[in-house]
Amino acid sequence: MWQITEADLPSIAIGAAILGTGGGGNPYLGMIRTRELLRAGRRIRVIDPEELTDADLLVVSGAMGSPTVSYEKLARGDEEAEAARALERHLGRRFTAIAPLEMGGGNSMAALCVGAQLDLPVVNGDGMGRAFPELQMITYLIYGGSPAPSAVADDKGNRVVIGDVVDARWLERIARSVTIEVGGHAGLATAVMDGAHCRASIIPHTLDLAHRIGTAVLQARDTNADPVDAMLSVSGGRRYLRGKIVDVERRLARGFARGRVRVAGFGGDAGRSISIDFQNENLVIWEDGEATVTVPDLIALVTTDRGEPVTTEVLRYGYRVDVLVLPCPAKLRTEQALAVVGPRAFGYDVDYRPSV
Amino acid sequence: MWQITEADLPSIAIGAAILGTGGGGNPYLGMIRTRELLRAGRRIRVIDPEELTDADLLVVSGAMGSPTVSYEKLARGDEEAEAARALERHLGRRFTAIAPLEMGGGNSMAALCVGAQLDLPVVNGDGMGRAFPELQMITYLIYGGSPAPSAVADDKGNRVVIGDVVDARWLERIARSVTIEVGGHAGLATAVMDGAHCRASIIPHTLDLAHRIGTAVLQARDTNADPVDAMLSVSGGRRYLRGKIVDVERRLARGFARGRVRVAGFGGDAGRSISIDFQNENLVIWEDGEATVTVPDLIALVTTDRGEPVTTEVLRYGYRVDVLVLPCPAKLRTEQALAVVGPRAFGYDVDYRPSV
Repeated sequence: MWQITEADLPSIAIGAAILGTGGGGNPYLGMIRTRELLRAGRRIRVIDPEELTDADLLVVSGAMGSPTVSYEKLARGDEEAEAARALERHLGRRFTAIAPLEMGGGNSMAALCVGAQLDLPVVNGDGMGRAFPELQMITYLIYGGSPAPSAVADDKGNRVVIGDVVDARWLERIARSVTIEVGGHAGLATAVMDGAHCRASIIPHTLDLAHRIGTAVLQARDTNADPVDAMLSVSGGRRYLRGKIVDVERRLARGFARGRVRVAGFGGDAGRSISIDFQNENLVIWEDGEATVTVPDLIALVTTDRGEPVTTEVLRYGYRVDVLVLPCPAKLRTEQALAVVGPRAFGYDVDYRPSV
Repeated sequence: MWQITEADLPSIAIGAAILGTGGGGNPYLGMIRTRELLRAGRRIRVIDPEELTDADLLVVSGAMGSPTVSYEKLARGDEEAEAARALERHLGRRFTAIAPLEMGGGNSMAALCVGAQLDLPVVNGDGMGRAFPELQMITYLIYGGSPAPSAVADDKGNRVVIGDVVDARWLERIARSVTIEVGGHAGLATAVMDGAHCRASIIPHTLDLAHRIGTAVLQARDTNADPVDAMLSVSGGRRYLRGKIVDVERRLARGFARGRVRVAGFGGDAGRSISIDFQNENLVIWEDGEATVTVPDLIALVTTDRGEPVTTEVLRYGYRVDVLVLPCPAKLRTEQALAVVGPRAFGYDVDYRPSV
């Protein structure tokens, strides 16, 4: 068990936003929210998955909605904690720890905030090792956790408990429709589980990983080293292309930020041109008519000069970016996981082939 | 306390569909569903509101969705009972009686089915004395009942408990979005209340009233009397126009059957032409540019020859219909009620004036 301090937050925010592959919402807003809780005297305790006992009762915390909305409609800040509390009341039991939903822009911070607000330890890990757009894509559920009961809470005081669902995809559909109805952003509590299931299904130590990636970027900036090289030395993976954003199509559809960004190669990559499809998160790189990189591998865009992650909602013509490809965690490469998070699960008629 | 038998069902179905002002779904399907339960040995006990004690715990049962969908997607039949059960589990308490949501095509039967399935008495009355399209429009809520917790259950096994809502309109919005997501039809359980609140807020004895209206129609048919005259002698109200349907616009929007039907006068009404706006239910009669009849007064269309109610989803060019206007119950005419069910609540810039 260790505690997160204010000094850790910028590193975690940068690292998680890179792992978030464009999604998970605004990292800056998430960081501010967390910082304010620490300044108000709340503490954020982190527990490693190995420390969980079978008697622990965990809930998965995170925000639901499109990243675009997270910019336009500021969160109240207690939606996720309220969702967890609603689930406790429904179950008549108290949770002993919080498991993060995903690493990603703002969402990496959501579970930390719930830990601070409910004074519960937060597990060092998450359900994706990255960010994905849909709820059935968390390893807690892929590996047998229960999608119900789950709870959705909004900023206005509405609390919805999804008591039974046919399967995790129906949880996604119902929770999404409620989220859209209440304004496109809501707090979520799901996948209630014991310590044994959390240990078995979590992508472990990703909070650490995010912190180390972010720290490498910040140190490189301070020492005039290349921040992208520094981050890749921690995360693994490779620079796929250095280039300039030359086109962005983006639309808000069914509560998701969907679209495509085109990047024209630059310098050593001059003459190459790629496009990247996204649904909140970057999904597929297309080059010369081929899907060269696909989910679940991580596709991250960072600014070339500072290694600053560029989330999908701020993609803009003219940005100089490095397109990075990072290996996905082993738990996302199994047949069971690929059925849920592989390219076919997103409607692409291609098989997953590891690209790093 | 009395029991409903198979012989009562055709009368109730016709009478409730007339009170349903075009809405509430298919009366024939509702009747068949109820008849099958009786034939399987279940009983339907009816209790008058005056018999309720303060110790009773009631839940309001009904179906949610558009009438159009009720034709295209047959209900499983236990959605409403499953919603009530989900709410019992959430509360950790058992209900002692069922209060009907509304009188209307199929929905008059929904509460009777729940009574049969859970072996609980059904209160003789309902929350509208007619049908309305939205949940906040039930008198149980208009007069101070609690919109949460409520539950929605579908045919697939999904169960959603709406644990807290800002107000009854938010209950409507959230329950509607879930209903649309699961296919446009769901069972609802809402407005949990004690016997005292039910007695105070229910529109009483509408099951009786529906039965008497339907019986009058059936007897008139058997004796070659005019079925419409017979029904009006029981319900009160008047024949507004006799005519032919000459145009129907209908669309499914936000889960509702919305549209407008035009009726050209016939016989003594030749030369007159009216149009009627509907949102699941008939809302307003327009004649010569004036809104001559509006909610909450009842606007019912029945076939001229047989007095058969014509619900909004089966309106069709060429039908010979009598357009009837029936007075609404006193509990819908208060200032408090008109704010929720008057013409302005449906977006019309006119005041309610009693038309019968």
